[in-house]
Amino acid sequence: MFGFVLELAKNRRSVRRYLSRDIDIERVLYGIRAALEAPSGANRQPWRFVVVKDAEVKARLRQVCEEDERRFYEKVRGELGEWLAKRDFTWEKPFLTEAPYLVAVFAELGKPYAVQSVWLAVGYMLLALEEAGLSSLTYTPPNPGEAGAVLGAPYRFVLQTIVPVGLPGEKKVKEPRMRLKDAVFINIWGRRLDSN
Amino acid sequence: MFGFVLELAKNRRSVRRYLSRDIDIERVLYGIRAALEAPSGANRQPWRFVVVKDAEVKARLRQVCEEDERRFYEKVRGELGEWLAKRDFTWEKPFLTEAPYLVAVFAELGKPYAVQSVWLAVGYMLLALEEAGLSSLTYTPPNPGEAGAVLGAPYRFVLQTIVPVGLPGEKKVKEPRMRLKDAVFINIWGRRLDSN
Repeated sequence: MFGFVLELAKNRRSVRRYLSRDIDIERVLYGIRAALEAPSGANRQPWRFVVVKDAEVKARLRQVCEEDERRFYEKVRGELGEWLAKRDFTWEKPFLTEAPYLVAVFAELGKPYAVQSVWLAVGYMLLALEEAGLSSLTYTPPNPGEAGAVLGAPYRFVLQTIVPVGLPGEKKVKEPRMRLKDAVFINIWGRRLDSN
Repeated sequence: MFGFVLELAKNRRSVRRYLSRDIDIERVLYGIRAALEAPSGANRQPWRFVVVKDAEVKARLRQVCEEDERRFYEKVRGELGEWLAKRDFTWEKPFLTEAPYLVAVFAELGKPYAVQSVWLAVGYMLLALEEAGLSSLTYTPPNPGEAGAVLGAPYRFVLQTIVPVGLPGEKKVKEPRMRLKDAVFINIWGRRLDSN
């Protein structure tokens, strides 16, 4: 079985370089409209979105995030450190000022399953943005509180991710994925599917 | 702008009663195939899925979950308690044995952003299941560790949700959602969109 959602999911890549070319905000809002339809714990809809278009706000966000990233990169070790080094990832986050839009996504603490619900909704948003022909990235700063404060969020709303949205400024190959039969068990942990 | 992803998102409802009628497992796996394409922290793909078809395993899961639910319902108060009471929700979870399939979704602790990544992937899965004509629910037991143990999961894989999948046995009205202009700010917290 093959359908449209799987096609969108397969085509979508995490894009880290963007053209600065402007896009219609309605295409960005289309992604958020889909997110707003997601289920959430007790339907509390514990999400808010700040759509950033203003260049000065983007520059402040980038500055705050990159300061934290510098400290993070000085310390990072282990599996994550190796993965980052292999991809030439550094503390620089140019997409925070290159992309025509940033969508900052917040979770309201104290609501049931707030973080889980918000990230489920982010899944909806990414697929809708892909359908709208827009690239995206789920970037989470090392210290989300500071970036949330730049945007003026009240304390009980915690920044989950900043999603740059725009047209891709790089060609990305899809990172490899696990095969279905390695990720799925049938009836009990360890029992393999016959399917591929 | 209106597209297919938004249509799927709007049409999908959280369904709590299922027909026991069997469905082709390939339709269930279609949802998981989409989930496997989701982005994840450092592409660690910190998810595993146990697809439960066996009636005995479903019965054991239901028993363990309902025992925890009884204790939960004896204690629950406040906003969540009121919301549950208004909907006549009880400790009974018939969908755990009614639905032809359950998809138990696990997150691998210690991987970067494991919980966030898994829930994003669940968002992909729900939309793909909707496209496949299947209803679903993101049910999380009060004590996920016990249900995970029923399925034989190693300790480092933590059950996130059990998703019943099948044909709906009830008519559901979509729960109301926030309007775009109440959920979205432009450039800074509190500044409203002109859009609707």
